[in-house]
Amino acid sequence: MVTTDLSNFYHFYPSLAVVVGVKSGAETNFMTAAWHSGVSHTPPLYLVSIAPKRHTHDLILSAGEFTVNFMPMEELKITHGCGIVSGSQVDKINRLNIPLTDPLKIASPVIASAYAAYECRLVHQYPAGDHTLFVGEVVAAHMDEGRLSERGILDPAKINFTMYQGTNTYVGADAESQRIVPRDLDELLETES
Amino acid sequence: MVTTDLSNFYHFYPSLAVVVGVKSGAETNFMTAAWHSGVSHTPPLYLVSIAPKRHTHDLILSAGEFTVNFMPMEELKITHGCGIVSGSQVDKINRLNIPLTDPLKIASPVIASAYAAYECRLVHQYPAGDHTLFVGEVVAAHMDEGRLSERGILDPAKINFTMYQGTNTYVGADAESQRIVPRDLDELLETES
Repeated sequence: MVTTDLSNFYHFYPSLAVVVGVKSGAETNFMTAAWHSGVSHTPPLYLVSIAPKRHTHDLILSAGEFTVNFMPMEELKITHGCGIVSGSQVDKINRLNIPLTDPLKIASPVIASAYAAYECRLVHQYPAGDHTLFVGEVVAAHMDEGRLSERGILDPAKINFTMYQGTNTYVGADAESQRIVPRDLDELLETES
Repeated sequence: MVTTDLSNFYHFYPSLAVVVGVKSGAETNFMTAAWHSGVSHTPPLYLVSIAPKRHTHDLILSAGEFTVNFMPMEELKITHGCGIVSGSQVDKINRLNIPLTDPLKIASPVIASAYAAYECRLVHQYPAGDHTLFVGEVVAAHMDEGRLSERGILDPAKINFTMYQGTNTYVGADAESQRIVPRDLDELLETES
């Protein structure tokens, strides 16, 4: 089916649901984001796309920094909860009982129950339709190293990833399905499909 | 563990591996991308982050358009294969036997074995470290509607998603783990964890 009706814009899920944190002056807030990505290796840059109507949007502009917190499925109440209420009306840290840990390089807090987190200094802000692209340089990374595989990458057998599927729906990864494939084209074409 | 050594920049995986297509003049090419996201609802905008050294980078600049193809795990040879060789040296369409289908609104081809695909017109190009952010307006969407759930979103029981985990490693989604949660904070806090 081919359509130009994009009112339901969901085809690109699942996407990891992350929690973006920011401290601006005396105010600290967290929001859920499914629109984000690494975008550069050197320097390491991370992008989050946030609508101007979000309370977090102007907090990031004034603070010039943010954190990105990668949450396991066990913390779904925090992850989803940060997306369904506004920090302008609810103190999410108290209401959701979000455990915090000290950042190393910036003032914005990191969530203690994340398996990984980035501290980012804002380096670009670009308009993109009804959202703003915030690009942050990752100046410090937090990682629960017990969650890594022997090959030094995140191990789906040790982390219940929280992937957003759209419409209040989340799904995890299937560790059993993991496949490691060769980087050589001839070898790749010889593998079982 | 807290570190400022980001030489290994992998903490944000898994991310859906997609195949970006472009036709510029007589040349058509495809490349794999793990750094991409929806970034705006109205208009619907899709972002891919591509290094200038990639052959596809300048093809997108000259064509002013691209496609984003969402591939099932069954097509891993195509998905991974497009990422390990350059279109400057290998005709990927012939070598990987990529099945094409006609686009509706642009000239760049769509992969027939994708479960979903976007046709994008380039509307922004922004620098981001060692990559360029290409932001395209989605002018048409292709979707195999038999893969949708009764709730009208992608069904992990009907699609083997191809999620990149870093270091030539892929993982699928665990349909059994799917959770639908309430949008009301009080209800959410009352759910079993």
